[in-house]
Amino acid sequence: MSKTIVIALGGNALQKDGFPATAEAQLDIVKSTASYIADIIEEGNKVVITHGNGPQIGRILLASEYAAKITPPMPLDVCGAMSQGYIGYHIQQALGNTLLKRGIKKPVVTVITQVVVDKNDSAFENPTKPIGPFYSEAEARDLSKEKGYIVKEDAGRGWRRVVASPEPVRIVEIEAIKMLLKAGAIVIALGGGGIPVTEDKNGMLSGTAAVIDKDLGAEKLAEEINADTLLILTAVDKVAINYKQNNQRNLDMMTTLEAESYMAEGHFAPGSMLPKIKAAVRFANSNSNRKAIISSLHLAEKALAGLDGTTIIGALPSGNTYLSPSFPDSKRDIKQLNIAK
Amino acid sequence: MSKTIVIALGGNALQKDGFPATAEAQLDIVKSTASYIADIIEEGNKVVITHGNGPQIGRILLASEYAAKITPPMPLDVCGAMSQGYIGYHIQQALGNTLLKRGIKKPVVTVITQVVVDKNDSAFENPTKPIGPFYSEAEARDLSKEKGYIVKEDAGRGWRRVVASPEPVRIVEIEAIKMLLKAGAIVIALGGGGIPVTEDKNGMLSGTAAVIDKDLGAEKLAEEINADTLLILTAVDKVAINYKQNNQRNLDMMTTLEAESYMAEGHFAPGSMLPKIKAAVRFANSNSNRKAIISSLHLAEKALAGLDGTTIIGALPSGNTYLSPSFPDSKRDIKQLNIAK
Repeated sequence: MSKTIVIALGGNALQKDGFPATAEAQLDIVKSTASYIADIIEEGNKVVITHGNGPQIGRILLASEYAAKITPPMPLDVCGAMSQGYIGYHIQQALGNTLLKRGIKKPVVTVITQVVVDKNDSAFENPTKPIGPFYSEAEARDLSKEKGYIVKEDAGRGWRRVVASPEPVRIVEIEAIKMLLKAGAIVIALGGGGIPVTEDKNGMLSGTAAVIDKDLGAEKLAEEINADTLLILTAVDKVAINYKQNNQRNLDMMTTLEAESYMAEGHFAPGSMLPKIKAAVRFANSNSNRKAIISSLHLAEKALAGLDGTTIIGALPSGNTYLSPSFPDSKRDIKQLNIAK
Repeated sequence: MSKTIVIALGGNALQKDGFPATAEAQLDIVKSTASYIADIIEEGNKVVITHGNGPQIGRILLASEYAAKITPPMPLDVCGAMSQGYIGYHIQQALGNTLLKRGIKKPVVTVITQVVVDKNDSAFENPTKPIGPFYSEAEARDLSKEKGYIVKEDAGRGWRRVVASPEPVRIVEIEAIKMLLKAGAIVIALGGGGIPVTEDKNGMLSGTAAVIDKDLGAEKLAEEINADTLLILTAVDKVAINYKQNNQRNLDMMTTLEAESYMAEGHFAPGSMLPKIKAAVRFANSNSNRKAIISSLHLAEKALAGLDGTTIIGALPSGNTYLSPSFPDSKRDIKQLNIAK
């Protein structure tokens, strides 16, 4: 049965350890990524693809700042737009080729996407996301004075510019994305979480130096297009509690209530699994028909079929129970999870 | 009456002499460009916007090559995709703001666009389009050996890489563009003429180092979406013969037959007005209901109304005549131009 699925690709869908950080190597990796996505499309699902852009925007910024003597460096919002063009192009070409090979005629298209953030978001008060090159303390202080950059010392490795990571509030191009989806296209959108823009009192948009978490961006998108499933693909097959400890336990399924207590217990690494769980919980809680799945790329199809990965649901359908894998540890009453729809 | 119009923006819609070559300055210029485009949209027309990317892709390449020691340089097709993201973002934001201010609710969206070129296009035999930084002869020869670049000495200014400028054959994302247009969106597509890709015998696409003329790309687009008008906006108000000579004559209208003889007579500068005339002739000849207009940005609306600019038509409707401004010089029989539809 045809579902609407937002696929949030992790960094490993675009680059891999041991491969050079070139565009050519990225394209090779994207070709294999495309075949997993094509499997999902082949089953008749409507698909929107989002992706991270951390290493790519990092390299764009690095080149841009390094070449500042000969050509003006690009602001962060523009670097974001450039990374959407770069990565989107690779995905749409590779996926288009794969679909053609399989005899599937569907347009694949990248939409440059702006995402509104609230300029009063508390994240702007304490920017934490390091971006761009490392500087000496003197250079950093100069940039701070000259360009208003906020700079911080980064774990003994030098000084870096830091920007805020505010919440996504609204996707500017959402109507265009819906039009394409309705007409049968596969859409690539919200690359890198979207280009962050703020809105003035008249609704006028302008770019802002910030980074939106790509999983939270994908979640917003999934809500706005009324997706059935938010599929977050990353480097692990399943979400685990007590990760990399002797008592690591991989989870097949968890309710959002469970997920929230695991978060409170500190099971998920900030900047890594934590934002994925947050996005998953937010989506599963937004509507009782919606679920999020976290798994790895090569298990995407099985995970969608409920045969692998970790499924996050708002609540179990009334009358059903499942044996919570965390039950023995958490002593949480299974019945607690049986919340009616 | 609602028409479908492809607007091909020239370089001066994005940057101006005397302004810094920064993204910030570009955005300011794009804001004023957006207001001219909004005038055309406000009249109820369906609009697709294409644009050049010469200086922008030049600067992206420059930064990328300059920073090669610290981060891998990007191939030309990827730089093209990046420039589409960069410029498209600015246009969609500025135009979106302008439309909102005027109370017009229409999605504005940039589509990353690949354009198929024929790998047997004769342009590949003799690449002429210089791109990227200047090199010393020794550097140029090294790059030629190492990366297979074709390099040429550029008018005493140093050595540069040259690439082919092949004909646009097919727009890969045309179905998506049509979907958006049909659903009421304003589409920005084919930036820089499109990302050039070649097709293997199985239809698999891959990027190629080339530059597609943006006016010929816009023409192809205008044909494929069955546009009424191809509006080419540039730095002059009208096309002229004997340009910048004592006997310069500005043209209100010309048939494609006239345009062809002017081209043969060498009236139009290669790389400047010539490709615009070629694109205009091709479009006007493609269907008797189609016309091309060449004018400047600030006259766009008047030119569309037939009150300014130069209109290029395939043939006059039967029974109509117009006084060819070139008639006294060319001794061409007006009747020759009265070709029935």
